[in-house]
Amino acid sequence: MINRQVVLVVRPHGIPQPRHFEMRSSAVPDLGLGEMMVENVVLSVDPAQRGYVNDEANYVPPVPIGAVMRGLAVGRVHATKNTEFAVGEYLYGWFGWQDYCVCRPDAVLRRVLPAQAPLLAAAGVLGINGLTACLALRQIGKPMSGETVLVTAGAGAVGSVVGQLANLAGCRAVAVVGSEEKGRQCMEEFGFADYVNHRSAWAAKLQLACPNGVDVFFDNVGGELLDSVLRQMNPFGRVVICGTVATSSWVPPPAGLRVEREILTRRLRVEGFVIFDHVSEFDSTAQELATLLNQGKLRVGYDIETELERAPQALAGLFAGQNCGKKLILLRDPQP
Amino acid sequence: MINRQVVLVVRPHGIPQPRHFEMRSSAVPDLGLGEMMVENVVLSVDPAQRGYVNDEANYVPPVPIGAVMRGLAVGRVHATKNTEFAVGEYLYGWFGWQDYCVCRPDAVLRRVLPAQAPLLAAAGVLGINGLTACLALRQIGKPMSGETVLVTAGAGAVGSVVGQLANLAGCRAVAVVGSEEKGRQCMEEFGFADYVNHRSAWAAKLQLACPNGVDVFFDNVGGELLDSVLRQMNPFGRVVICGTVATSSWVPPPAGLRVEREILTRRLRVEGFVIFDHVSEFDSTAQELATLLNQGKLRVGYDIETELERAPQALAGLFAGQNCGKKLILLRDPQP
Repeated sequence: MINRQVVLVVRPHGIPQPRHFEMRSSAVPDLGLGEMMVENVVLSVDPAQRGYVNDEANYVPPVPIGAVMRGLAVGRVHATKNTEFAVGEYLYGWFGWQDYCVCRPDAVLRRVLPAQAPLLAAAGVLGINGLTACLALRQIGKPMSGETVLVTAGAGAVGSVVGQLANLAGCRAVAVVGSEEKGRQCMEEFGFADYVNHRSAWAAKLQLACPNGVDVFFDNVGGELLDSVLRQMNPFGRVVICGTVATSSWVPPPAGLRVEREILTRRLRVEGFVIFDHVSEFDSTAQELATLLNQGKLRVGYDIETELERAPQALAGLFAGQNCGKKLILLRDPQP
Repeated sequence: MINRQVVLVVRPHGIPQPRHFEMRSSAVPDLGLGEMMVENVVLSVDPAQRGYVNDEANYVPPVPIGAVMRGLAVGRVHATKNTEFAVGEYLYGWFGWQDYCVCRPDAVLRRVLPAQAPLLAAAGVLGINGLTACLALRQIGKPMSGETVLVTAGAGAVGSVVGQLANLAGCRAVAVVGSEEKGRQCMEEFGFADYVNHRSAWAAKLQLACPNGVDVFFDNVGGELLDSVLRQMNPFGRVVICGTVATSSWVPPPAGLRVEREILTRRLRVEGFVIFDHVSEFDSTAQELATLLNQGKLRVGYDIETELERAPQALAGLFAGQNCGKKLILLRDPQP
């Protein structure tokens, strides 16, 4: 059985591009005791993957040169030599950019229940994106009814869920986006009250869109927008640091405006969130999100490609704002 | 009755200097209904007073030009036309840089109990300095036994208490100071395990002094030290933003290294602390600190002047690191 893999061949500085990867094919190895073979159905393309290939301090060591690209996917157990997972089960985990993954149960983040929601949802809104939105908003953002919640990358896989959950919590949700089209989508589909296009003169618009200041800033991008929003936060505001896509490289460390006086005088709480610290909460939170999804209270946008070899371009495109909704690479029929 | 006052006459940009103030004398006005006259005994000189005179957004509006300098003091009720406080009582509150303050009860932060501790302590370790150290360390720093607590301005009125409380909590307390003399004082008097002199090559020393990284960073200074320490924080570390004395002016906003990637990948919590949000906890916390003081578990350093007209120079000196211990202006015999 032949396995196609997207392999990291050059270590990128900054944003990974297609030239840093290569397609390779090889036979799927025989299973050892305790291992299983997962057939990937849909690959998740996530900004966090930039950090997995850069040679910079991160919460995980970087993907070695010559190794298959690290990535999350929903797959189906095709063969197994462990007792934990049965053939035919759908799983969400670290199965990488390839057709088949030979792995142990520790690669699995969550068992996917096809009856719970469509399989595509398992790779997005019930995967790290929706889970991040829900848990980071709840645990760090702590939005209260009537507050203003500002979300960068508001049309993205995380931001669009944050906006809807903030809206459901009785907050004024405001999106920061990279195009008018995404802004309209945020208002029409995701329940945002207003949006700011960061590619136009956004500073004045930001004040107009948040007339009562900002109580919760859910930031997926960082950079100058973060500098600016910190200066519009209300006292006791909460800032969720969830992503840094606005900064293309961290070597050498880029400069920005000093933040400590804003944090002090406004008594802000600024906190980083990495979803993989919260695996024990995945199943219950995914069930909450699935319920909202099935009740029609949560809308999800997908941006789907179908070719494995397009994955590197899809990743680079995230940092250029080219995707519209959750970026997925669908490798085979998602219906079980 | 003649009242000498230190009046703000020029609005400073950056650190206030003696030229921004003037001594004036006038008769103490008659008391209106509900007012009282407090005779100041000891004035507290605090870095926060810089923010009270600068024309920059802060948690309180700036002192108007021509007004007496805002400041905390311990004073004694000399006459009263309110029923809340009796003549002879000692109080801690916003009595300003002057001999006598005519005020209402809302100027009072806490009733001083002479039996609880020496009167000087009421203006420092039982005043905003010790209260800040205790409450910010407990509520934001949340130190756990075995952790490393790094404190800037470690020999100062706040930092020296933080170090001792961290030590009592079973932590490794490390001070950042501006001189070898202060460093030795931190180790010999305040229970710090080690110190870093920020006027010498401190980056390497910082790593040596914190071999297990930094779990809690109690920062009273900000600036480049903050940039550097953020890059040595352990995962899930807590950063108390308590002061910004390292930056002499915030107009125009100074630049520093971007912090969002450190906060994200290390999952830091960075939070600002302003003691005046916690007035309801003052009495119980001051009692805790008084108990430690009376048990000999808490040592306090004072740096005392006795001339009202020296107050502006004393304030400027805080930012040059000239004080050694809590800076006070003692106007009359502290013993009741």
